[in-house]
Order: sequence, then C-alpha cells, then structure tokens
Amino acid sequence: MNVMTGLEMRPGRRFVGRLPHQKDLITSIETFCKEASIDMAVFSIIGAVSSVTIGAYDQKQQVYVSHFEKAPFEILTCTGNISLKEGSPVAHAHIVLCDEEGKTTGGHLFSETTVFAAEFDLQELTGNRLERVCDKRTGLMLWNL
Amino acid sequence: MNVMTGLEMRPGRRFVGRLPHQKDLITSIETFCKEASIDMAVFSIIGAVSSVTIGAYDQKQQVYVSHFEKAPFEILTCTGNISLKEGSPVAHAHIVLCDEEGKTTGGHLFSETTVFAAEFDLQELTGNRLERVCDKRTGLMLWNL
Amino acid sequence: MNVMTGLEMRPGRRFVGRLPHQKDLITSIETFCKEASIDMAVFSIIGAVSSVTIGAYDQKQQVYVSHFEKAPFEILTCTGNISLKEGSPVAHAHIVLCDEEGKTTGGHLFSETTVFAAEFDLQELTGNRLERVCDKRTGLMLWNL
Repeated sequence: MNVMTGLEMRPGRRFVGRLPHQKDLITSIETFCKEASIDMAVFSIIGAVSSVTIGAYDQKQQVYVSHFEKAPFEILTCTGNISLKEGSPVAHAHIVLCDEEGKTTGGHLFSETTVFAAEFDLQELTGNRLERVCDKRTGLMLWNL
Repeated sequence: MNVMTGLEMRPGRRFVGRLPHQKDLITSIETFCKEASIDMAVFSIIGAVSSVTIGAYDQKQQVYVSHFEKAPFEILTCTGNISLKEGSPVAHAHIVLCDEEGKTTGGHLFSETTVFAAEFDLQELTGNRLERVCDKRTGLMLWNL
Repeated sequence: MNVMTGLEMRPGRRFVGRLPHQKDLITSIETFCKEASIDMAVFSIIGAVSSVTIGAYDQKQQVYVSHFEKAPFEILTCTGNISLKEGSPVAHAHIVLCDEEGKTTGGHLFSETTVFAAEFDLQELTGNRLERVCDKRTGLMLWNL
C-alpha cells in the first residue's frame, strides 16, 4: 500500500450519551456496539476516569508496552473507531489525559480504564466493513485494505 | 445507569468557520448557538489562544479547580458539545494546548479563554435533546439519561 | 469579524481507511483529496509515526517555529481540515503525540512526518468552499469569511 486507501462509508445511526460510572471504558463501548449491531463506527469521548491503562507500541520490538495508573484524570480527548476482529466489533482508541495540575499524558487505550463520568458521540458507518488482520510489516492488527 | 446509554440523534445543520479574534472561546460558541437556535451539537476546534482558563475536577472534593494563564498556546484539540442547562444551550469542552516549545497542557475549558485564531467544525444534532442536571454520585452536571 | 462566522456545509462522501506506511502524512492526505476532487473536508487520525515535524506560531513575531524529531510516537489525536489555497486543497492539522513513556508533545503539523501506521476518518463537505487568504491582524492564512 503506497497510497492512502479509504473505503467510502455511509452514515448510519448517531448516538450521543453517557458512559456508566465505575465501569470499564472499552468494554462499555464494545458492549453497546454489540447490542446495537454496530460493526463500524467512529467515536469521540470527553470526561474523566478514576484509573487508566495506557501504552505505546514499540515499533522495533513490535509489542505494546502498557501501564496501569490508579488516579483521577480528565479525558481531554478520546478518539476511536469500531471495526471487526474475528467477526466481533472491537474498539481502537487513543486517549489524552491530564491530572489535577493540568499535566498531560496519554497513549493507546486499554482495558482496565474506569470511567468517572464521560460523554460520547458515536457515528455508525455502514455500506462497507473493515476487518482487522495482522500486518506483517508493522506487526499490528490493521484493516484489510 | 450500569450500561452505556445513548440517545439516537439526527444530523442537523453543519457549520464550518472561524472564531473571532480576541474574543472569549466559550462565549463565542454559545452565542452562535443561541442565535442559530441550536440546542444540541458536537464540535471540534483547532487554532491558537492568547490566554486560557483550564481546570480539572477534584473527584473527591467534587469541585472544579481552575487556573488562568496569560500566554500564547496552540489549540491542539478542543472537543465539545452543546446541550441544554435551564433551557439555554451551554458548551462543555475539553482542550489540549501546547506552548512554543511543544510542551502540552490542558483541561476542562472555562471562560475566560481568548482566541487568537481558531477554526471550528460544528454538527447540529436534532430529534432529541439532552438537559444537564445535577448527578448526585459525581456532583457533576450530567445529561438526564 | 467580531462574532463567530460559519458557513453551512452539506455532508459529502465519507472515507475511512489507512495512511501508507513510511510516507509523509500531510502529503498523503492532500494527494488523496486531489485525486478524489475533494475541496473541503474535516478529518481525524489516530496511529503512530516514526518521525514528526511540529511547531507553534509565534504570535508576536508572526512566524511558525518548527522542529523535526526522528523518533517513534503514538498519534493520540490529529484533527484537521481541507480547504483551498490558490485553488488547491491544502491540509491544516494539529497533532498530539506521546512517546513510549506516555510523555506528550504536539503542535501544528508539518511535512515531513513519516507514518508508521494510521487510521483516518475523513468527511467531505460540499455546498460551500473556503479559501485561505492572508489575515493582516494575525499574519496567518485564514479562511475568507
């Protein structure tokens, strides 16, 4: 793939709402999508968490390095998408956080990340579906384009 | 609320444009929405400010702690929504900033925050309206879902 | 311009996909838009880069100060738009990054920025077109509103 490759999607349903208090962020979104039969979507979240698991991909070793922090943070942005892995909707999201002094941190978002309060905007996408498969060059689970 | 709860919205009007130079960011958006009769929306902004007021929610004390900085910053992201509080459209936005060395900071965005230059993308949402009411568990003004 | 000014746009095509490995981020998006005849759009990207060029605008000297870093970073957010400059689609994007320790940085995004892996969501906007022209007060290339 030497050029940017995109599938044309159609807008499906759009949902705006709240994530549940003291529940896992990723699990909440994936459960919502399974129950609403959403295979593809993009979403954006702001709010706060009471703990977080974030990490980064080691591009040389081809492995994610993650860490858990039990502390309150504001969610400054959480941008993600829903697509299929082995037939089930999975979330891929990156997050930017700050602590009470405004000091920022962030990374690839993992479970377990506990929501304090959060507002989401989720746009379902239809007409095409993307499936994650292992990409040999990067070692990541990327879309089959 | 033990599960993620969302209202299905319909896309309304979409506006792309500029925020006014040397005016307050939050006030500019809320005035725009009042004048255009927008009750619900999501928006995204990039640009720069010449001063900013940001803070974080103290989850134990249940109070926002904020501070004002009179300095130039890039707006790396500003993600927010418009919904109703006591019948009027109010903005809830979180922001990520950087200074001239690329050092990042951010938080919950308050007035007074003075725009240097900024570009917004605002999607009106119709069909349902969300009203902010006091949530007893968190002490925050959350949507009545 | 003393008030926020927005043009009403209509949603055009929506594309979701991948940016090419080891190619320049900005060039990939602009080439995609030229080939698809996209004059106006908004986009959002998450992923990772193997090098980046970021900067900030010196509001007093009215000049961008940028620097290049050859190191792996996660793209926590990359929010941008496509509009016209001298008749051609150009990207304006701001980015938030983190290194392998979760330390964040960011800024106005320039070429050369080399994609490791990245997923984009691009919404074409039609019905109106915005052209960038020099704004005397800020020294920036802003939309002709």
